[in-house]
Amino acid sequence: MRALTVMPGRAGSARLDETPDPAADEGPVLVRTLAVGICGTDVEIVSGRYGWAPPGQDRLIIGHESVGRVEDAPANCGLSTGDLVVGIVRRPDPVPCRYCAAGEWDMCANGRYSERGIKELNGYASDRFRIEPAFALRIDPSLGLLGVLLEPASVVAKAWDHVERIGSRSGAWAPRTVLVTGAGPIGLLAALIGQQRGLEVHVMDRVTSGPKPQLVRDLGGTYHAGHLPDDIDFAPDVIIECTGAPSVVLDALNRNTPSGIVCLAGISSGQHRIHLDVGVLNKSMVLENDAVFGSVNANRRHYEIAAEVLAKADKDWLSRLISRRVPLTHWAEAFDRHPDDVKVVLDFTL
Amino acid sequence: MRALTVMPGRAGSARLDETPDPAADEGPVLVRTLAVGICGTDVEIVSGRYGWAPPGQDRLIIGHESVGRVEDAPANCGLSTGDLVVGIVRRPDPVPCRYCAAGEWDMCANGRYSERGIKELNGYASDRFRIEPAFALRIDPSLGLLGVLLEPASVVAKAWDHVERIGSRSGAWAPRTVLVTGAGPIGLLAALIGQQRGLEVHVMDRVTSGPKPQLVRDLGGTYHAGHLPDDIDFAPDVIIECTGAPSVVLDALNRNTPSGIVCLAGISSGQHRIHLDVGVLNKSMVLENDAVFGSVNANRRHYEIAAEVLAKADKDWLSRLISRRVPLTHWAEAFDRHPDDVKVVLDFTL
Repeated sequence: MRALTVMPGRAGSARLDETPDPAADEGPVLVRTLAVGICGTDVEIVSGRYGWAPPGQDRLIIGHESVGRVEDAPANCGLSTGDLVVGIVRRPDPVPCRYCAAGEWDMCANGRYSERGIKELNGYASDRFRIEPAFALRIDPSLGLLGVLLEPASVVAKAWDHVERIGSRSGAWAPRTVLVTGAGPIGLLAALIGQQRGLEVHVMDRVTSGPKPQLVRDLGGTYHAGHLPDDIDFAPDVIIECTGAPSVVLDALNRNTPSGIVCLAGISSGQHRIHLDVGVLNKSMVLENDAVFGSVNANRRHYEIAAEVLAKADKDWLSRLISRRVPLTHWAEAFDRHPDDVKVVLDFTL
Repeated sequence: MRALTVMPGRAGSARLDETPDPAADEGPVLVRTLAVGICGTDVEIVSGRYGWAPPGQDRLIIGHESVGRVEDAPANCGLSTGDLVVGIVRRPDPVPCRYCAAGEWDMCANGRYSERGIKELNGYASDRFRIEPAFALRIDPSLGLLGVLLEPASVVAKAWDHVERIGSRSGAWAPRTVLVTGAGPIGLLAALIGQQRGLEVHVMDRVTSGPKPQLVRDLGGTYHAGHLPDDIDFAPDVIIECTGAPSVVLDALNRNTPSGIVCLAGISSGQHRIHLDVGVLNKSMVLENDAVFGSVNANRRHYEIAAEVLAKADKDWLSRLISRRVPLTHWAEAFDRHPDDVKVVLDFTL
């Protein structure tokens, strides 16, 4: 079968390989891949800055944002031939930490997890993959290729889940307004969940054109180009920071309202030293009961929430998140950045 | 009656006044004051840097850490003559925010609260005070003057309450170790609650002598003088930061463990600009699911938790928190800082 592989740590090593069919020990469910999404982590892996091959191997099959159709499944495993499925990314260590032991591998406290397509386990960017039923989600068949958005949606489903749980430290928690910084797929899916929860949605990104502003407006949200005006007339109860850009992170912390919550969901790259008055920030956080938390990855419960989010979303809106579909044979084009890109996917059906 | 008053905003204006008895509109319950604790906020008020007099008045009776005995109370109000009581500090605005409306004035989102002894309401540092039954806590009679520790204990009871509620974003949350930075009354009471909850307790403060190290050890905790060694052999699930010192705040953020929680409970003073890599801090918070929150004040539920904490604490240990008892006539001595001070109280019975 065809598989997109890389030698982790070596830039320029990515190539379309002909590999043996997936090994039976990767799981009893056999899936034919429909599409694999490309995200910043994939770019890092392909550029040699991230990723780990399976133990004893040189190369890693990449791809962690998947959607496929079941070709074969054991009886009574909850999945049947023809089901549309998405694979969960992370797996707990055989000797799990207390979080992993409870199925909360997204909260892994010892770092000994593995991840399909990223860390020590082959990913989903191959014509077929195998998977354990406990790590495969059956999704609404009407989603089709849009199911490739489930993995990024699971990440923001977790972020929102934790926003709500942290918010419930107060019995009077009832958020009305959310500000999302960054209008990439993660930010737009975070905005979608905010809209589905009935919040007033604001999204800020640096672009002034392209599909993002209209995608926000079509959610009923307000788009802010480049920066927020200093005299914004809304007080966000929730800020979901999806850029990782240090200046935006600091702006988010400073715009947090009393008893508000900032979720940090964007991973910073590089070094950005900033002169900061930690005393002023600390005092304001204390006196205003501010909460800030980081959120990464997702466990099965979050995938299930995300599946409901996608199932009830407008399919046309979702389809516009997928700005380019690249045939596997042209995989390298998926790693070129185009100005109007939102989510680029490798389409295995083309 | 005697009352310790100040003209807010004017340093050197504090004096022991002879004032009329408390006005009936301050509440139907009349209390004879046993003691009033002095904290950093009182020092700020007396030095002219904080505080607001009641509307239309020049002077404010200070004192917000109270304990007294009921002299008169309406029938069926829940309090009776002779009861040992403590007054709650904060009052919601007559037009409350949604938090204040739910009795969570500690989370006030519009800043229009008032506070006995601090903001627009006379405090408790007078021979008698009046109070509304809903804002008075009856406490274990065996506490006596130690009841003056209830207000600071309520502040850390809230901090712990929010630690637990934020922790419950994960079903596997089961903290084992707490690090408290700062061994003043707030830090030591935070350590006490940690110990009562069965956690391994570590406390760090800059002092190397005086009562604080032994107070920590007598809780069964470990005292770290000056700083934490870089090779600490414990991973705190919870850090309660009680110093407000920017370098300690940053150290707390950096020592947070994956899925750990940092509670900021110390108010910084002055300006402390620090060169900081916000990108590195953000990335670590995201990838480790770190949570950081500020906590201030307390609502009635937290006072009730604190009353249980004090009732089951070792009374000898609690009494050692009160390092000096100053007669009201010598009130100025309570504002002098002695090296071995933990909590200094104005004792109205001397």
